[in-house]
Amino acid sequence: MKVLKLKKNSSSLNSLKNDILEVGRRVYAKGQVAANDGNISIRLDENHILITPTGISKGFMTAKDLIVVNFDGVVVQGTRKPSSEVFMHLEIYKQRADVESVLHSHPPYATGFAVVGVPLDQYVLPEVIISLGTIPLVEYGTPGTEEFYRPLIPLLKTYDAFLLANHGALTVGNSVYNAYFKMETVEHFAYISFIARQLGKVNVLDDKKVKKLIDLREKYGIKKMVGIPVTDNKSKKNKKK
Amino acid sequence: MKVLKLKKNSSSLNSLKNDILEVGRRVYAKGQVAANDGNISIRLDENHILITPTGISKGFMTAKDLIVVNFDGVVVQGTRKPSSEVFMHLEIYKQRADVESVLHSHPPYATGFAVVGVPLDQYVLPEVIISLGTIPLVEYGTPGTEEFYRPLIPLLKTYDAFLLANHGALTVGNSVYNAYFKMETVEHFAYISFIARQLGKVNVLDDKKVKKLIDLREKYGIKKMVGIPVTDNKSKKNKKK
Amino acid sequence: MKVLKLKKNSSSLNSLKNDILEVGRRVYAKGQVAANDGNISIRLDENHILITPTGISKGFMTAKDLIVVNFDGVVVQGTRKPSSEVFMHLEIYKQRADVESVLHSHPPYATGFAVVGVPLDQYVLPEVIISLGTIPLVEYGTPGTEEFYRPLIPLLKTYDAFLLANHGALTVGNSVYNAYFKMETVEHFAYISFIARQLGKVNVLDDKKVKKLIDLREKYGIKKMVGIPVTDNKSKKNKKK
Amino acid sequence: MKVLKLKKNSSSLNSLKNDILEVGRRVYAKGQVAANDGNISIRLDENHILITPTGISKGFMTAKDLIVVNFDGVVVQGTRKPSSEVFMHLEIYKQRADVESVLHSHPPYATGFAVVGVPLDQYVLPEVIISLGTIPLVEYGTPGTEEFYRPLIPLLKTYDAFLLANHGALTVGNSVYNAYFKMETVEHFAYISFIARQLGKVNVLDDKKVKKLIDLREKYGIKKMVGIPVTDNKSKKNKKK
Repeated sequence: MKVLKLKKNSSSLNSLKNDILEVGRRVYAKGQVAANDGNISIRLDENHILITPTGISKGFMTAKDLIVVNFDGVVVQGTRKPSSEVFMHLEIYKQRADVESVLHSHPPYATGFAVVGVPLDQYVLPEVIISLGTIPLVEYGTPGTEEFYRPLIPLLKTYDAFLLANHGALTVGNSVYNAYFKMETVEHFAYISFIARQLGKVNVLDDKKVKKLIDLREKYGIKKMVGIPVTDNKSKKNKKK
Repeated sequence: MKVLKLKKNSSSLNSLKNDILEVGRRVYAKGQVAANDGNISIRLDENHILITPTGISKGFMTAKDLIVVNFDGVVVQGTRKPSSEVFMHLEIYKQRADVESVLHSHPPYATGFAVVGVPLDQYVLPEVIISLGTIPLVEYGTPGTEEFYRPLIPLLKTYDAFLLANHGALTVGNSVYNAYFKMETVEHFAYISFIARQLGKVNVLDDKKVKKLIDLREKYGIKKMVGIPVTDNKSKKNKKK
Repeated sequence: MKVLKLKKNSSSLNSLKNDILEVGRRVYAKGQVAANDGNISIRLDENHILITPTGISKGFMTAKDLIVVNFDGVVVQGTRKPSSEVFMHLEIYKQRADVESVLHSHPPYATGFAVVGVPLDQYVLPEVIISLGTIPLVEYGTPGTEEFYRPLIPLLKTYDAFLLANHGALTVGNSVYNAYFKMETVEHFAYISFIARQLGKVNVLDDKKVKKLIDLREKYGIKKMVGIPVTDNKSKKNKKK
Repeated sequence: MKVLKLKKNSSSLNSLKNDILEVGRRVYAKGQVAANDGNISIRLDENHILITPTGISKGFMTAKDLIVVNFDGVVVQGTRKPSSEVFMHLEIYKQRADVESVLHSHPPYATGFAVVGVPLDQYVLPEVIISLGTIPLVEYGTPGTEEFYRPLIPLLKTYDAFLLANHGALTVGNSVYNAYFKMETVEHFAYISFIARQLGKVNVLDDKKVKKLIDLREKYGIKKMVGIPVTDNKSKKNKKK
């Protein structure tokens, strides 16, 4: 194994490792994973990422379990095997220069929607619209293979949060906490959507109300059109149930 | 920034800050917020309130994150930006001299009812009737604007707890714990109501039973007509499903 | 206030107080109460009980909040007001010499069944049948009055756990932990029953299987006919849905 | 009582006891048991197992509560009575030389499926297919008797996780954490399946997709045909709802 040379010094690397451990504990405590499910990564520099290993509960990792891999997927620090989704993580960092962290987990309500094939694409709650827009459903592909993340690539331009058909959910962010909070938002929205659908008819916000929310994004430092599919600017989506 | 002069001394201000931090942790631990959702305030004196900042998880704040603003909305202590709902909080304190604290969060079951547009206005559980009466649904308005809290104003005279359409819930109280406990009651009632509606027909208490409960309020120091709309004194509400 | 003379010495009284505090924390942590809901008591001797006060969250009590009352309901130790249900607790201890503790809370699923008026009277799960038998629904009465516990009295002979219509649940036991564990069983059974009813048709155990379970009671030191209504020995109950 | 002679030394026995205590706490914290439900064991050597006692909450055990029994079911260490399911545990260890631990609990969603008689036998989520395959429903038998585990025996050859009709769930593994993580997977899958069934039609993966997942097992060190009933190789199962 060659010597690891990163732009980050070892103190900031240790700090990022602690951030992944903390997010792993939260993901586990919130019931977003069972057994060894899920994976979390952080971009370290233009040629390296820090990523969780395969075969371990994300709620009970220690710093020495984490792995540095380069952009060819070669392990350059750590003794465990990286997540079998390491190439998906690398692909996302290649596609999106603004992304510093990627989180994949299986929150039960979001995954329930992903199992019936229903995207969270209605405009219902203002905080969700402001921070994420809509949450699309990404076609199923076998995990651990390129097939898994190929259908994700064209959607990366528009969205920061995704349902993965018959699988789980994925978020990207400018820090691992940012990616994690987006996952909280996805699951909170899926949970409320489930409750509302059981109770009756979900009320959606009309185009005028949605536009006002999108206009608030600038104030919160959120990119203008994140999660807003182009078709929605003229579509009738909000009129259907 | 001008020097902060409060009627409260700094030791009692610190104590109130700790109360907000504790309520923030509970609101987060109970799943009533995702990401940076929610806001909490306490009245400090006739011209100041203490309020949570925007852009932070309410489960992980420290005392220095909190902000003192005056009744014009000007920050007089703290380095962060106050909640974008600061003017709603101020308006409530202006309207209700008896209110010492305001809490806004997104508890999933209460928010589910708010998304389908169903108020919690049936008389079902004695503790809820005694402490809150009924919980109305406040019309939707864009958050962070006056439009958000304008529909709330006429309801403030009658109620201490509110569902906010397509958004969440709001409670007011004579302390931040009192406002928080009212939020627990709202969500507990919404949860039980959800379960009951899925199981079958919700039984409501008849007018005579409700009157006996209202008569118990004096014993608990609760205002006679809180949460009891005038129309209910002669209405047929309890006869419909 | 007269001097408290108990058969228990102060060390065992302190230990019982700690048991109530611990059960209060568990009841709160499990979401069985909101705000100041619920009450818990322990029999101290033939003329005194230890009971929780009114107007406090059961998750955050300290030993000095607890109250000793005599069988006339007079406070003999403590500065707070006893639970408004103190006379129900006393009545239960008078009716049932074997009962050492009483617990009343509002677990959401059990309360959901109590709100639609459906008792948990089907023979479904072996552990529930062995420990509790069936769980009847007690008619509604205004809390804090004799009307509240009058309908409970005739059922005390047969049952250790109860749903209280439009209100919550009640358990009695030979210790405060025993009463608490019965409440866990009630809520766990109500939760599973809810899930099963949403999924399809609940399978009930036939009379022969139920008899085998009742026969196992002796081995676990459980009274032969607890929770088994006489009519069930010849009834067709298990054949209906 | 005769002197205990184990192949394991006392330090590794203590370590295994701590593992059972930790898994007991997790099972309790996750709400998989109420009161004294559930039992957990570890194989110690060719003639002994370590097992939890009857009559205690699995969330609050200490090392001295645990019991060593030999393969005749005779207690050789410990003062409590072993779980009434000790003979089921022993039978499993006799049937499956590869099994080092057995866990039985009552997770609410898995138990809900077991109460309506619906096995978790659809191919829906890749992680579940890879780690467990399908989860069959074992016929009901009176607990604490041979009748309870007799229907389990023929299924032990094929499966590592089981729903127990009108009762709960069971998992086996190569360590107590492995058995516990399988239980997490069972309940997580049952929970997601419940949510999906309430939302609409569950999408199942076709035979080609399932085959690709089974082919990934070797990479994760999982036995080729665990949880894949022979009939599924040619059956139409995935085409039915």
